[in-house]
Amino acid sequence: MITNLKPGERLDDLQIKGYEIIQSPGRFCFGMDAVLLSSFAHVRAGEEALDLGTGTGILPVLLEAKNEGSRYVGLEIQEESADMARRSVRHNGLEGKVDIVTGDIKEAAALLGPASFHVITTNPPYMIGNHGLKNDNEALYVARHEALVCLDDILRESAKILRPKGRFYMVHRPFRLPEIFAKMCGYRIEPKRMRLVYPYIDKEPNMVLIEGLKGGNPRMQAEPPLIVYEKNGDYTKELRSLYGV
Amino acid sequence: MITNLKPGERLDDLQIKGYEIIQSPGRFCFGMDAVLLSSFAHVRAGEEALDLGTGTGILPVLLEAKNEGSRYVGLEIQEESADMARRSVRHNGLEGKVDIVTGDIKEAAALLGPASFHVITTNPPYMIGNHGLKNDNEALYVARHEALVCLDDILRESAKILRPKGRFYMVHRPFRLPEIFAKMCGYRIEPKRMRLVYPYIDKEPNMVLIEGLKGGNPRMQAEPPLIVYEKNGDYTKELRSLYGV
Repeated sequence: MITNLKPGERLDDLQIKGYEIIQSPGRFCFGMDAVLLSSFAHVRAGEEALDLGTGTGILPVLLEAKNEGSRYVGLEIQEESADMARRSVRHNGLEGKVDIVTGDIKEAAALLGPASFHVITTNPPYMIGNHGLKNDNEALYVARHEALVCLDDILRESAKILRPKGRFYMVHRPFRLPEIFAKMCGYRIEPKRMRLVYPYIDKEPNMVLIEGLKGGNPRMQAEPPLIVYEKNGDYTKELRSLYGV
Repeated sequence: MITNLKPGERLDDLQIKGYEIIQSPGRFCFGMDAVLLSSFAHVRAGEEALDLGTGTGILPVLLEAKNEGSRYVGLEIQEESADMARRSVRHNGLEGKVDIVTGDIKEAAALLGPASFHVITTNPPYMIGNHGLKNDNEALYVARHEALVCLDDILRESAKILRPKGRFYMVHRPFRLPEIFAKMCGYRIEPKRMRLVYPYIDKEPNMVLIEGLKGGNPRMQAEPPLIVYEKNGDYTKELRSLYGV
């Protein structure tokens, strides 16, 4: 298929099903967090999944490749990112299976309807608040800092949008775990599963993968450590398998 | 020093400063959790530290051996355990430095006074609630199940007893982390440091060490994994150093 790329854009191979994604290195490219979240999350046959703040649509596309869900929706506030995501959907022939909606997470429940999804995924901005640091690259700034949306917005809207016993999957930074768990409990999205990602076996974790269950009972499974690199700097066997290489 | 042991009791070497502790294998013996907590916690010169639910007094004795605090208090509701703890204090010549108080954690603030300690440690019962399972060994049952005290009691009383910016150290099971963090945030004992203990590098963590700061700001440090065993079943180098062997 011939896809028209705009200036600065490129097509990246996703190493699965021949899918490719349009990215603009000058704006924002997906990272390991998105790849790890796409394997940590599960969408069962017939389920509908929503990705909050989908950017270029990496999560819905990877989830479609790895799962048997009936429909994947990505919500994105930045029109330029949403446009790239829509073109990637067409490029991979995923029209009808993956929809990209332009809109604000803060109004997601009103936009998409209450109790409308079985699964929510999100790879939100990690850094607290909007410190007013202006960045020439607004797309990158919005992706990394809570300038347009904060953790509370995401959990509040997710609690409304998830069906009863719906599942919430998020990747975030471990330094915010207390706030994440306190807010999840407050919104009755009970944390059920957690996995810490350690770059090396003797280093601090730099990511955490979390699964919540809407209306679930308290009791969380803490999983084995996910270690990214061997001591010699090679990817570990598990990391290679998650990247499909 | 000659110490009279009661039937069923024995003296165990603590591998530090020549200290020994009286234990009764038929009742309850301290485990790795107490040893790890005693190294994770820090008591600075001149500070006073309280151990909630001290059992045979293992935490105050180990903390005294490893730190420069001015006074260590252990609160214990079971008179038989408190008596063993007091005899261990005398056996090690720690009168005046370590005090064992018989009393109920649920009334600890009224008993010991508000804002009276710089540091609190606790190795509480891990299992939720009192399932009515009666055990011939009541001491063991009370140590393991929330029969006499629950997490909320511990955090509520700790919030009262800690001085401003006082530090709270706890070892617990990872499956209760969401509840632990939610309650700590609720009582304004902000989680500041967390370390997961994995028995093996590829297994689920079975303990978590937590430090909270009374009135602290949100931002937690997640520490490198603490791994207990090498693949061949030997203790790891770090574990051996924590045990002083």
